[in-house]
Amino acid sequence: MNITSSKIRVDLDQSTGVAVMWMQSPPVNSLNMDLLTEFNTTLENLEMDKSCHGVIITSSLPRIFSAGLDILEMYQTSPEHCGQFWKAVQELWLKLYGCNLATIAAINGSSPAGGCLISIACDYRIMADNPRYSIGLNETLLGIVAPYWFKDTMANTVGHRTTEMALGLGLLYSAPEALNIGLVDKLVSEDQVVNTATHTMGKWLAIDEHARQVTKSMMRKPTIDKLLSNREADIHNFVSFITKDSVQRSLGMYLKMLKNRKG
Amino acid sequence: MNITSSKIRVDLDQSTGVAVMWMQSPPVNSLNMDLLTEFNTTLENLEMDKSCHGVIITSSLPRIFSAGLDILEMYQTSPEHCGQFWKAVQELWLKLYGCNLATIAAINGSSPAGGCLISIACDYRIMADNPRYSIGLNETLLGIVAPYWFKDTMANTVGHRTTEMALGLGLLYSAPEALNIGLVDKLVSEDQVVNTATHTMGKWLAIDEHARQVTKSMMRKPTIDKLLSNREADIHNFVSFITKDSVQRSLGMYLKMLKNRKG
Amino acid sequence: MNITSSKIRVDLDQSTGVAVMWMQSPPVNSLNMDLLTEFNTTLENLEMDKSCHGVIITSSLPRIFSAGLDILEMYQTSPEHCGQFWKAVQELWLKLYGCNLATIAAINGSSPAGGCLISIACDYRIMADNPRYSIGLNETLLGIVAPYWFKDTMANTVGHRTTEMALGLGLLYSAPEALNIGLVDKLVSEDQVVNTATHTMGKWLAIDEHARQVTKSMMRKPTIDKLLSNREADIHNFVSFITKDSVQRSLGMYLKMLKNRKG
Repeated sequence: MNITSSKIRVDLDQSTGVAVMWMQSPPVNSLNMDLLTEFNTTLENLEMDKSCHGVIITSSLPRIFSAGLDILEMYQTSPEHCGQFWKAVQELWLKLYGCNLATIAAINGSSPAGGCLISIACDYRIMADNPRYSIGLNETLLGIVAPYWFKDTMANTVGHRTTEMALGLGLLYSAPEALNIGLVDKLVSEDQVVNTATHTMGKWLAIDEHARQVTKSMMRKPTIDKLLSNREADIHNFVSFITKDSVQRSLGMYLKMLKNRKG
Repeated sequence: MNITSSKIRVDLDQSTGVAVMWMQSPPVNSLNMDLLTEFNTTLENLEMDKSCHGVIITSSLPRIFSAGLDILEMYQTSPEHCGQFWKAVQELWLKLYGCNLATIAAINGSSPAGGCLISIACDYRIMADNPRYSIGLNETLLGIVAPYWFKDTMANTVGHRTTEMALGLGLLYSAPEALNIGLVDKLVSEDQVVNTATHTMGKWLAIDEHARQVTKSMMRKPTIDKLLSNREADIHNFVSFITKDSVQRSLGMYLKMLKNRKG
Repeated sequence: MNITSSKIRVDLDQSTGVAVMWMQSPPVNSLNMDLLTEFNTTLENLEMDKSCHGVIITSSLPRIFSAGLDILEMYQTSPEHCGQFWKAVQELWLKLYGCNLATIAAINGSSPAGGCLISIACDYRIMADNPRYSIGLNETLLGIVAPYWFKDTMANTVGHRTTEMALGLGLLYSAPEALNIGLVDKLVSEDQVVNTATHTMGKWLAIDEHARQVTKSMMRKPTIDKLLSNREADIHNFVSFITKDSVQRSLGMYLKMLKNRKG
């Protein structure tokens, strides 16, 4: 069965119960409103589909998993728009980190910022063993700040100290470095990333589904509840920060740099 | 001095202040009501004995430290019985994790589920370097779920991420793997496990006792208080879960599998 | 520019915005009231100096970074004095752990107890690769107890389990061991410790200052708030503990041992 939207292609294998979500939003799977909305709807539909038990998230584009949040959604846009955008980012994380399905990130390209967030919100991470691909929460490099729930998810993955240094310096880790600090769980050759994810998913689906879901919820609920009880304040904080003149200037400079790089 | 009950033999060396608790409940030191009750009483008595400063917990049976909670106590028994059983399990953990004595697990055999819980509730873990012996919180393999205080104890030992994967997949680690992730602290040859524990205990008893106890309490009290303030709800949750038809079926299947293995 | 007090020399390079604080209180930079007070004032002044963006903390004495809290401030002194002393220790930690400046510990000698606390309260730790230098929270060796905010800072650096064993046994780690458990971040030859710190500081100052500060605050505020909301009780606990006869005896014995060692 194929469910296809413009930004995400879904292949669901009814025999195994495993869906693959291919992000296909050129040039770099930036998480703009459209992609976020489709991501959230797709995941919600798969979670309600009784034939689906696990989902693999990957990219159909070369060399990039996702470039993270689309800066154009927060550069010179209205506070209202920034707020709606942030709500969609929250929604993605809430749905994915708390997903009842087993979730594996098949990271077949670079995965900075929001791309890293998607990865660490999954149950397991397999990355292409290409040292030119990098992953990390590099928000400070852009003059912005990862919110506490990005930080919590990172700390739940690699611990407090590594998170503190990674976020403070905006570190992007090469695939081997990411394996070394536990930011990803396995490296395989680029053409084997999705296959290995499919194979690994078998181990997760072999576990009694109810026991697996209750265990996952026990591990993640306290982190999720922190945002759930605080969503409006978090949106408010984000909008206040991102609409500051100094922050807008940083974003503008970053966009100009990206443009020059391409030029 | 020997204090001996039917399920646990205690050797207390008055000259060193070190007691060894040998679990001797064939065939596999399953934690049934009798063993739990004797464990709790023995530990309580040692803690009140002013001549005792440290306790080593080990097994007198070959190849097994403890097989964990006895499934027969929760399979086709009354909710009342399940509740009493769970209360005794809580009691063991509360007493051991918060024990004023220095505690070392001398893990001379496999140590799944409740056996692992006893191990990680001690101050230090020495395991036989036999790769066929394994240790881990493998509850999900049986279709059941480790409660949050098992999880907290595990996370306090090996961190959040390793715990999440270990519990989600019900992983059992071989002795070398357990050393590698920090689930045990030291491997020694099988015949040296208890000797090494006795020798190591000397380091703990060399520390000023009051300072050691206050420090231990500081490290563990927040985790212990979470259960103390919530014991009844935790018993209720356990009984609700374990008496579900689907969970009883899982336990029945597991018992049948064990029986066939032996047969 | 040089700001020099009797116990601390400060070199602030206006061109780079990096200050070096040299502790110069012979024989071992013991943290007595004078050194604590000057440390706190110096750090406060640097934080308010708009030309200063990062601070390196090091020692001008051979073979010692800081020997930690001065026992003479808490041995056979009045409860009032103990309370004031402890307040100054709290103040140092609150200021340093929450410092808006980027902070690097250039650990060019041994760094037990309070010396270790200063180190782990910085953003980054560079230590001389001399295996005879050691670092750790060894309070229990003196019969005293590191308070929960020492413990929290340690756990934020090396995790819960390592902290539990380190504090319980009063472990002092050699420089290579400290690197291995993540208690320090880098080892360099003794004559390169401050140079390397200066070079490394460049990476921290390359990050947008506001983003770096907000990120640091996000990582550390929960730990800081625990003490801020509880300072008086913490002082009371310290004074009650340290003025106990048994604890005073332990301190007396420790002081006698130090004296004999020198004699």
